[in-house]
Amino acid sequence: MQILITGAAGMIGRKLAERIGRDGALNGIPLTKLTLTDIVPPNRPPGFAGDVALVPLDLTAPGAAEALVADRPDVIFHIAGIVSAEAELDFDKGWRVNFDGTRALLEAIRKAGDGYRPKVVFTSSVAVFGGPFPEVIGDDFHLTPHTSYGTQKAMCEHMLADYSRRGFLDGVGLRLPTICVRPAPPNKAASAFFSSIIREPLVGQEAILPVPDSVLHTHASPRAAVGFLLHAAALSPEQLGLRISLTMPGVCCAVTEQIDALRRIAGDKAVALIRRAADPLVARIVGGWPHRFDPRRALALGFTAESSFDDIIRIHIEDELGGKIAI
Amino acid sequence: MQILITGAAGMIGRKLAERIGRDGALNGIPLTKLTLTDIVPPNRPPGFAGDVALVPLDLTAPGAAEALVADRPDVIFHIAGIVSAEAELDFDKGWRVNFDGTRALLEAIRKAGDGYRPKVVFTSSVAVFGGPFPEVIGDDFHLTPHTSYGTQKAMCEHMLADYSRRGFLDGVGLRLPTICVRPAPPNKAASAFFSSIIREPLVGQEAILPVPDSVLHTHASPRAAVGFLLHAAALSPEQLGLRISLTMPGVCCAVTEQIDALRRIAGDKAVALIRRAADPLVARIVGGWPHRFDPRRALALGFTAESSFDDIIRIHIEDELGGKIAI
Repeated sequence: MQILITGAAGMIGRKLAERIGRDGALNGIPLTKLTLTDIVPPNRPPGFAGDVALVPLDLTAPGAAEALVADRPDVIFHIAGIVSAEAELDFDKGWRVNFDGTRALLEAIRKAGDGYRPKVVFTSSVAVFGGPFPEVIGDDFHLTPHTSYGTQKAMCEHMLADYSRRGFLDGVGLRLPTICVRPAPPNKAASAFFSSIIREPLVGQEAILPVPDSVLHTHASPRAAVGFLLHAAALSPEQLGLRISLTMPGVCCAVTEQIDALRRIAGDKAVALIRRAADPLVARIVGGWPHRFDPRRALALGFTAESSFDDIIRIHIEDELGGKIAI
Repeated sequence: MQILITGAAGMIGRKLAERIGRDGALNGIPLTKLTLTDIVPPNRPPGFAGDVALVPLDLTAPGAAEALVADRPDVIFHIAGIVSAEAELDFDKGWRVNFDGTRALLEAIRKAGDGYRPKVVFTSSVAVFGGPFPEVIGDDFHLTPHTSYGTQKAMCEHMLADYSRRGFLDGVGLRLPTICVRPAPPNKAASAFFSSIIREPLVGQEAILPVPDSVLHTHASPRAAVGFLLHAAALSPEQLGLRISLTMPGVCCAVTEQIDALRRIAGDKAVALIRRAADPLVARIVGGWPHRFDPRRALALGFTAESSFDDIIRIHIEDELGGKIAI
């Protein structure tokens, strides 16, 4: 089993590589080679003694995608991409990295020939959805993104589906909810506070809450995200059918429920470190996002997320803080 | 008012050019220049004495799209594209013409700069939908095409929406239903019989019906399609909001109702020329198509189609047969 991970230096890519390295196998088949690529040099996952190739690469450079598929990886986790805020600020870069990069990879696979048909697990996003929304977003709600990032993800979903239908690859797209608790440092996303109001108090630092406590949002832990990717790699084309992109499950809760969970786990002292400082711009951006999903197909296919925000905090403490709360 | 029409040698493009030439104006503003482009040489519309440029051109050739927008057309009707069957048979050509061609046009507009922001009316298709379907397809049903053609149209809808949202152009996408009655000669589409069972009997020729009489389908006349395009060009960005692609209205009826309408208009002698010859492949393809829509947004925005299949036949007789039935 040869595995390729793009975006392997990013938060999810790194955690996925570590998990696969630790498992030494995927879908019960021993790992023979792990290729990690990113625009910045990826790191060798600790604890894996096998064959690892670390390939710093711009996927849109001529020949780059072809080089990555040259030794025919069986499973490709295509996670590479720039985030929403950056794609909105730099139109050209967003289209080049998020769209053209994906197309280059799919084209390289298609043109490889000789019956090559890898599994391609693509990380999409709930940013493919844009309001106005129904109260709960079902699996057949249309994609009307309000950002260039969401547009690029939606278009990649379509392209992946067509390449799959034509038999060039076996694709699956995962619409990830907000990943929470993100490890430090905070990123510049408008959603960053959802993580920081948990992460900072757990290490005795103040965090800013820029939106009302009533704001609803759906979250999944980084560990759950890695679980989604691994589970997707094990699904057969028959299980997926033609609708290969799926909204992933998550924990839908209000900010006040996040704070209650923090109190249960780390006490009033942690909660006291959350400082309210309304930011109308952030509140407006977050208010335009989808809140709640009914991801029936993903659940029926066996994808699982946490069942409470308490679990999400506990996973952060286990995976990032060595099991200890420093407050 | 300068107008550019791509795909101007095709059936819809030609009829649109003729109508605009006849009107000599669009949205009440006199036409100063009409540029018609297609991969094959377009014809000068009869009856228009003004400035017409006929530009045979491959939109994907380097510099082609830039040349088309060089004199800043105010309204662009982007109709160019290859049909479903051809895009399915020739994967590369479909992506190049239907997707890359559209992207080249949008990029040329974006890069024109100097505040240029044309109205772009794009012909999408109900092929963006793929089953399983609800009984009626509403405006917020997701796009899950089952063909490369439908995929390319869906992706162009997304791209057009992002370019509009970013202020590079004012886009509107029209998901056309099956156009019926298509003038002769028949095309190779699986849907061709919907037209030929009307068109051929009206001129005393036999036509084959390859599907059961119970098959439901939604139709709009070529004249209605031209009307959609003109109406779309008059809509403001404020009327459209962010969801700029719309399912167009049409007449939903069973084949048996088409035949009843033919009988009312042209008598039993015409109906007797329809020969039933079951074609399981055509029946299967057509069975996988969407049948019925609830295009509320388009209706609310003032788009109108025929109200009966009788009207569709009468329009064909008026527009293609000089008002006379030859049987």
